[in-house]
Amino acid sequence: MPPRPKIPRPTVKRLSLYLREIETRSELGHKTISSKQLGQALGLTDAQVRKDLACFGNFGHPGVGYQTTELIAELRNILGTDRQWNAALVGVGNIGRALMSYGRFRRKGFDIAAVFDSDPTIVDQDIAGHHVHSMKDLAGLVKERDIKIGVVAVPAAHAQQVADQLIAAGVLGILNFAPKRLDVHDKVSVVSVDFSVALEQLAFQVSLGLVGSLEEG
Amino acid sequence: MPPRPKIPRPTVKRLSLYLREIETRSELGHKTISSKQLGQALGLTDAQVRKDLACFGNFGHPGVGYQTTELIAELRNILGTDRQWNAALVGVGNIGRALMSYGRFRRKGFDIAAVFDSDPTIVDQDIAGHHVHSMKDLAGLVKERDIKIGVVAVPAAHAQQVADQLIAAGVLGILNFAPKRLDVHDKVSVVSVDFSVALEQLAFQVSLGLVGSLEEG
Repeated sequence: MPPRPKIPRPTVKRLSLYLREIETRSELGHKTISSKQLGQALGLTDAQVRKDLACFGNFGHPGVGYQTTELIAELRNILGTDRQWNAALVGVGNIGRALMSYGRFRRKGFDIAAVFDSDPTIVDQDIAGHHVHSMKDLAGLVKERDIKIGVVAVPAAHAQQVADQLIAAGVLGILNFAPKRLDVHDKVSVVSVDFSVALEQLAFQVSLGLVGSLEEG
Repeated sequence: MPPRPKIPRPTVKRLSLYLREIETRSELGHKTISSKQLGQALGLTDAQVRKDLACFGNFGHPGVGYQTTELIAELRNILGTDRQWNAALVGVGNIGRALMSYGRFRRKGFDIAAVFDSDPTIVDQDIAGHHVHSMKDLAGLVKERDIKIGVVAVPAAHAQQVADQLIAAGVLGILNFAPKRLDVHDKVSVVSVDFSVALEQLAFQVSLGLVGSLEEG
């Protein structure tokens, strides 16, 4: 097993936040960034920043900081977003439509290569530049278009069935927006995003008068 | 300080997942649920479930399990979703529109009481049943409508400015969908949801062939 799986999840999450901040600064023309600047931007100590980045080699240049382009390339490589992942989006509801128009999706190396829905009234329509395919075409198109990621944006009641179809079709990972835990029998990776959980985290904090910032995936 | 703030965040997150599962079963007519059933549904040990729930009093009934209605009420009370939070949504882009049509928003006690955008071409329009107000009306409407939560669904470049306006207007918490860390000077609670982070978590797992399920906020 390579060492990377041993990276603790909070670290992986911070790597995403570092990358986001460094990309922003790079777009503004900054050639370097210090661990202190990075820490201040994210509410972390510069020691934490140096510790996290040191896991992956010594990118820092004393007195100069990190070269933004160098660090961006390395972080993308570590996170696996330096390659392209073809994704199948299942479910053309509100979240599905938001995802279809979500620019950062592609920027993170995820290309929506096929869109599916079970609703006969929208199958075969073109929505936000994507042709909506019938679920019966899922298995064939996943193979034909080398799709490795399935995005589940269907109601909770249908999510498991859609996940099973995606896994059977051969995807390696699922991004789940349905408010339901998917059972993937440890066959694929799953990351779930449920707004409700974020809402409840906020309600919990606000009702207790807790202040400060939390980063959610 | 009341004891609840001492609840560790991972526990708070699990409470949300417990509530989601119990609500689903209750809707299916289940009157009780055991810690074992709850654990199986969420991939946790029943010991973990009992430990989490025991923090908040002894709801369990030996041999019977938990009364779903009783536990739902208690979890909603703990999470603060048993009361109504008026929310202001700022930004009527794709994410904003998805949120306006997001049924669970209201179910979690969040009522979108006012919608704002800076784009003159959509200000004063009615979108998804909501009237879009100009940003200049934000301070007044937040007070007038007793709005306690601000939802930031604007581009990263404008997020901090919008957050500052919301805080100045008197909100207690911000749900941030902009891919940027907001500086709230520890004046309010913030929960941030960034799809990019979820995408990178998934890319990271898939590129390493890691399998299994992660729950994100």
